[in-house]
Amino acid sequence: MSSQQIPYKIYLSEEEMPKYWYNVKAHMKNARAPFINPATQRPCSKADLRAVFCDECIEQELNDTDELIEIPQGVRDFYKMFRPSPLVRAYYLEKLLDTPAEIYYKFEGNNTSGSHKLNSAAAQAYYAKKQGLRSITTETGAGQWGTALAMAAAFYGLRLDVFMVKVSAEQKPYRKEVIRTYGANVVPSPSETTAAGRKILKEFPGTGGSLGCAISEAVERARETEGCRYVLGSVLDHVLLHQTVIGLEAKTALEKYGVTPDIVIGCVGGGSNFGGLIAPYMGERLQGKNEIEFIGAEPASCPSMTRGKFAYDFCDSARTTPLAKMYTLGCGFMPSPNHAGGLRYHGMSPVVSQLYHDGYMRAVAVEQSKVFQSAVMFAKCEGILPAPESAHAICAAVDEALECKREGRKKTILFGLTGTGYFDLGAYKQYNDGTMTDYIPTEADLAKGFSTIPRCAVNEGLL
Amino acid sequence: MSSQQIPYKIYLSEEEMPKYWYNVKAHMKNARAPFINPATQRPCSKADLRAVFCDECIEQELNDTDELIEIPQGVRDFYKMFRPSPLVRAYYLEKLLDTPAEIYYKFEGNNTSGSHKLNSAAAQAYYAKKQGLRSITTETGAGQWGTALAMAAAFYGLRLDVFMVKVSAEQKPYRKEVIRTYGANVVPSPSETTAAGRKILKEFPGTGGSLGCAISEAVERARETEGCRYVLGSVLDHVLLHQTVIGLEAKTALEKYGVTPDIVIGCVGGGSNFGGLIAPYMGERLQGKNEIEFIGAEPASCPSMTRGKFAYDFCDSARTTPLAKMYTLGCGFMPSPNHAGGLRYHGMSPVVSQLYHDGYMRAVAVEQSKVFQSAVMFAKCEGILPAPESAHAICAAVDEALECKREGRKKTILFGLTGTGYFDLGAYKQYNDGTMTDYIPTEADLAKGFSTIPRCAVNEGLL
Repeated sequence: MSSQQIPYKIYLSEEEMPKYWYNVKAHMKNARAPFINPATQRPCSKADLRAVFCDECIEQELNDTDELIEIPQGVRDFYKMFRPSPLVRAYYLEKLLDTPAEIYYKFEGNNTSGSHKLNSAAAQAYYAKKQGLRSITTETGAGQWGTALAMAAAFYGLRLDVFMVKVSAEQKPYRKEVIRTYGANVVPSPSETTAAGRKILKEFPGTGGSLGCAISEAVERARETEGCRYVLGSVLDHVLLHQTVIGLEAKTALEKYGVTPDIVIGCVGGGSNFGGLIAPYMGERLQGKNEIEFIGAEPASCPSMTRGKFAYDFCDSARTTPLAKMYTLGCGFMPSPNHAGGLRYHGMSPVVSQLYHDGYMRAVAVEQSKVFQSAVMFAKCEGILPAPESAHAICAAVDEALECKREGRKKTILFGLTGTGYFDLGAYKQYNDGTMTDYIPTEADLAKGFSTIPRCAVNEGLL
Repeated sequence: MSSQQIPYKIYLSEEEMPKYWYNVKAHMKNARAPFINPATQRPCSKADLRAVFCDECIEQELNDTDELIEIPQGVRDFYKMFRPSPLVRAYYLEKLLDTPAEIYYKFEGNNTSGSHKLNSAAAQAYYAKKQGLRSITTETGAGQWGTALAMAAAFYGLRLDVFMVKVSAEQKPYRKEVIRTYGANVVPSPSETTAAGRKILKEFPGTGGSLGCAISEAVERARETEGCRYVLGSVLDHVLLHQTVIGLEAKTALEKYGVTPDIVIGCVGGGSNFGGLIAPYMGERLQGKNEIEFIGAEPASCPSMTRGKFAYDFCDSARTTPLAKMYTLGCGFMPSPNHAGGLRYHGMSPVVSQLYHDGYMRAVAVEQSKVFQSAVMFAKCEGILPAPESAHAICAAVDEALECKREGRKKTILFGLTGTGYFDLGAYKQYNDGTMTDYIPTEADLAKGFSTIPRCAVNEGLL
């Protein structure tokens, strides 16, 4: 079918929306390594996990065999509120770049959370309600995840406590207000409401908090509250699973027009949007059914894959979680001030890490000023003001499209546009004012981070 | 067709998008009164208008006869970036209200300007470019119009100067930053860059500015710059015309499922979104082809229709524009601090005013705290955080749906959801904190406003 017939935006009908999530683990040559209980150095048991997470999420976390996992009707009902999301043919971007490449992007920003986060928030809140829980807890930094979970908690009728990094709550009062509007309780972290928070406040009075600390407080609250569990917005397998609606919808939409991408690109922080976007295509690749190139775009300031180590590490900086085997800069790595808050994470999804380690994808690190240059160019020609996180994928896609132009080769590029930048305008202001700077960690910075990767039995010989 | 078969969201295909705007004036029993040149007290000539507005917009402004006016391909190309907008069946709102009413809303917020304003910005920028102009000017208060026009100017390659009310530029720095990101020049008004601005600054040093003052500066800049015209975002007939894509898309989508509304509701400030939403249905009503009830929802704090006078008045508070016959509170009426900035206008579209005067629609005034109550209820059950302006329509629709419940009658309600509230979270914070207050002007307040309606030849016998 000629490209002239492809509309600017493809929306699936509600009947065409996925009824199953796609579990890429069913096709992986090497399963991701199990989570390890740091106290015993043995794989985590279901019982270990049940004290913290919802039962159904644990089942999904540990399911390495079923390719398709049904999306419950109750979740699909919520998905209809903000899905299907549009698959857009970037005609104007192609024209501006004067490239022979065909560029498509899957846009997840048309909902109040402003990002793809709602895909997993909906599922996790649904399972919590179904399990008979009364409340859930979580942490949030930049605030997109907190907003998404607040929306889902309101929809399913659950109480939600959001431990929001104190400095974020102060710097982004409007994000906090969206969360409150949806009825959730926002607790600036560290707080006096948990032992973990009180300990940190005693040790560091006046601290602005950290994601690691907020996680500790949220987990403690969940453990100590009857009928309550903790909910996480990225990194874990079940979160990636929920995000596969992105890739499934994109694939269905493209197939309606006979299109298969040559390259699929996403930004990577914890890895959930990227994992969800590539999953159905990667599953085919793992079965030898395609030769698609997968590219994860990460910030040069926090280069987990391009410069990290593949080792067991804590998922949080407070060292309270199980150990996960992943690409990591060290749980004590301090990323520089970088506007893409959602990508400022020391580790990486164990599934994405394993696929990267096994050579099924590559990673690129992009510098902030170049990312914003792409973002502004994109905003002007495609009309959408992207989140800084999402703009990492734009930047990598533009690089690939320009490579096609140099080579005079037509390729089809699909990238994930995860969200909007309406709450990131402080960063845009820096760019517009010409005061934005880049930061790339030195070898010494990295060495300092690596020194915080635990030296323990499971890491023997790995470092 | 049974309601069970109607999807949650209806998206038209690109082929189904309107190719013509709908000029409701072709069917009006009484034409709206002509604009009057205040100096001569005679109707404005095309020449009067050409010094300020684009030629094609003037043709549309004065066209009372053609029912359909073609949307140029160049505008339809831009519309594809953010249209068709979804028509949503408010299943969750219906369920929450437990009403026999069927409720639909046309959602215009899924674009970076966050509102319907882009529909007219696209058209006006296109015509400016086609006329060979190099630049355009406008004013903006809350910032949605300025954002929309900045996007359109970037798309068509025009320079844009946005005179932004100084206090808004300071209170909403992020709105200003979106406009800058799209490459427009933001000038806090009053400024030293125009004679009008310098005069006001000399008279009132340190003033935060006003919309009236910003209009004066923008018009002066356009008049005195070679190849430049002024562009307005509401009130005028051609702006309403461009907004008819809202009503046309909604009507086409509903007709696909055999649905005709009994009631159509929109919020009203300058009247352009409301006029655009109702136009195709009103055109049929004026021809005796339906019995639809049309309701404009305005803020009780600025009740142009429910408590205003039908008279000739200036469109701006600085008294620089032609006189328009409309419902007005007086060009000197000072609306109270009210969060729905887009509805804080003393007058009303002359077309909407005439239709109201002739009894084809009714108006309701709603109080702010009730509006926010509806907004939060809506956000929680339908997922969209509405702009305060849009929430006026939600509030009126909820009232109608509850009336259906009391009467045990099924009615079909369509309302316009013009935009999102992402830049209005200061107002939501007040509501969440319980510190929001209502304000209703006293008879003395109104009398003071009415005293600023010009006493002139065309108003003899009208006041």
